[in-house]
Amino acid sequence: MLVPADEVAQTALRALSAVAPPEHARDQADHLIEAELRGISSHGILRLPRILRRISNKVADPGATGDHVWRSEGFLAVDGQKGLGPVVALRAIDALEQRVKQTGIAVAAINNSNHIGMLGYYAERAARRGHSMIILSTSEALVHPWGGRRAMIGTNPIAIGLPIGREEIFMMDTATGVVSMGEIHDRANRGEPIPIGWAVDKEGNPTTDASAAKSGAIAPFGGAKGYALGLAFELLVTSLAGAAVGRRVVGTLDDDRICNKGDLIILIDGPSTDLRAYLEALRSEEPADGFAEVIIPGERGREARAQRLRDGIEVPDQLWREICGFDGVATGGLKK
Amino acid sequence: MLVPADEVAQTALRALSAVAPPEHARDQADHLIEAELRGISSHGILRLPRILRRISNKVADPGATGDHVWRSEGFLAVDGQKGLGPVVALRAIDALEQRVKQTGIAVAAINNSNHIGMLGYYAERAARRGHSMIILSTSEALVHPWGGRRAMIGTNPIAIGLPIGREEIFMMDTATGVVSMGEIHDRANRGEPIPIGWAVDKEGNPTTDASAAKSGAIAPFGGAKGYALGLAFELLVTSLAGAAVGRRVVGTLDDDRICNKGDLIILIDGPSTDLRAYLEALRSEEPADGFAEVIIPGERGREARAQRLRDGIEVPDQLWREICGFDGVATGGLKK
Repeated sequence: MLVPADEVAQTALRALSAVAPPEHARDQADHLIEAELRGISSHGILRLPRILRRISNKVADPGATGDHVWRSEGFLAVDGQKGLGPVVALRAIDALEQRVKQTGIAVAAINNSNHIGMLGYYAERAARRGHSMIILSTSEALVHPWGGRRAMIGTNPIAIGLPIGREEIFMMDTATGVVSMGEIHDRANRGEPIPIGWAVDKEGNPTTDASAAKSGAIAPFGGAKGYALGLAFELLVTSLAGAAVGRRVVGTLDDDRICNKGDLIILIDGPSTDLRAYLEALRSEEPADGFAEVIIPGERGREARAQRLRDGIEVPDQLWREICGFDGVATGGLKK
Repeated sequence: MLVPADEVAQTALRALSAVAPPEHARDQADHLIEAELRGISSHGILRLPRILRRISNKVADPGATGDHVWRSEGFLAVDGQKGLGPVVALRAIDALEQRVKQTGIAVAAINNSNHIGMLGYYAERAARRGHSMIILSTSEALVHPWGGRRAMIGTNPIAIGLPIGREEIFMMDTATGVVSMGEIHDRANRGEPIPIGWAVDKEGNPTTDASAAKSGAIAPFGGAKGYALGLAFELLVTSLAGAAVGRRVVGTLDDDRICNKGDLIILIDGPSTDLRAYLEALRSEEPADGFAEVIIPGERGREARAQRLRDGIEVPDQLWREICGFDGVATGGLKK
């Protein structure tokens, strides 16, 4: 059903407010709604029931903000204390923002925090505040190494944001798998096949059967190159954050295990260079056959956001009923 | 012809020593030889005649080391002063290494420097010294935007290196084009076709004709995702370094224009986490059909290095004769 964006936001906020401090509920709800608005529904309110169950199961602590230790002037080690992902990430970013005035660059390495969601949210926010951000996160092993058969590497997304002049920003956000597991589940639910090259089945053989792919592994994007990048992110994030690696990662796709992936956030002060003319030139390029236009990453998401703010958000009926039913009682009397 | 690695190194060093201070000649020669040893001949001694011509044409200053300004505690702005790429980059990295003891993370943004060559050289060196490095560089526009027809974006490579325990390191190095322009030139020289999807011709149409691709554009690797990454690197590097962007970039593929691309080097102190067991598990994975093994990025390069150190480096006859002929006289009496 199509629900006004404001109603989705209020409903998510109400459900979270029953179990989390007001500011934390707002940070988490805002993040889920922003993902919905940009059409990234896999990181949207679909995640809300799981978040509430994780709180109920005490593997997520809605009151935690993360313990900050500056290991050196520009390196912030964050123990997320099982906090909600956006709550812990935003507090870490606040600390980095203060620090980069002095150091020009600073990094937060976060472990023991829950799913931080759509990375582009943080990268775009940083860009709007005049900073460049490179943000990485690991996940459960869902991607197979190039030339391998089994999931051994996280989907390990990266987002990069920076100001490009006046009020404009650039932001890109992509995982290092060729497709998301959410998309494979969607295809399976609809009984549709997947293209060859997206995934392997549980024996490690290429498959077009979306259901078989669910218990298999996603291919790295761009073959050996995407594999190398995804693996580099896995190693960099897990080692700097002191997080779990590879198949040991749990907690973003289940209800009852403490989340042990890592997040790495690099913040750089500036730049103030005006690159709008270059992006405008890109937009004006003659499109290739089969393309309507040359698209700047992030812009479709911003267009989708404007459209959904106006027209509403499409929410599966069952999910909407579930979310509307959440309150202190439905989630096990967690109201504090 | 097959030339002993040591002879290639000595010959390159002799040619460079005729025109550059001894330490700078060694930095540049070492870098070219390391690329040869790892099989990245596009960044090897093939580049030497151009470097010497650029020195002769005064668009490269072999005596320059770069002017360093710490804009803040962790942000080093480097004016390369037309110096040789490896000379300027290594001096910047030396400064970062000193600084990260205090700040944990530091970044150098370099402009006005010549081609810094194979990025993996720096990333692996940093890893061996106990640091993590993310290094990016821009180039002449050779890659078309996803859905576009013309080269608008550099090949914008990235290398990431980090220590993974004991003496072991991880290093990956990849450009964001699906293939290098060097490979396309090689195919054209041999009269061989290229796979569809590698490049477009000068009208922007997909081509299998390597010669036609030379005047066209390379595709981004991994489609829209690789395009987004390559563009993000273009924007991040050029804006932080104050370098030229897109089609305005010159100086790594010609003999007579001042090089105006940018380089960005992020250095992080540590980690000391031991991830060798994870990489060993990856290596031990059962390979997919058509693959002999699961390969860890960077390892084939290190194997190639050992083999070439033992057996010699394959150098095209004409290039070898040209390089052997270089001395102070042949390059215009530039000896200082």
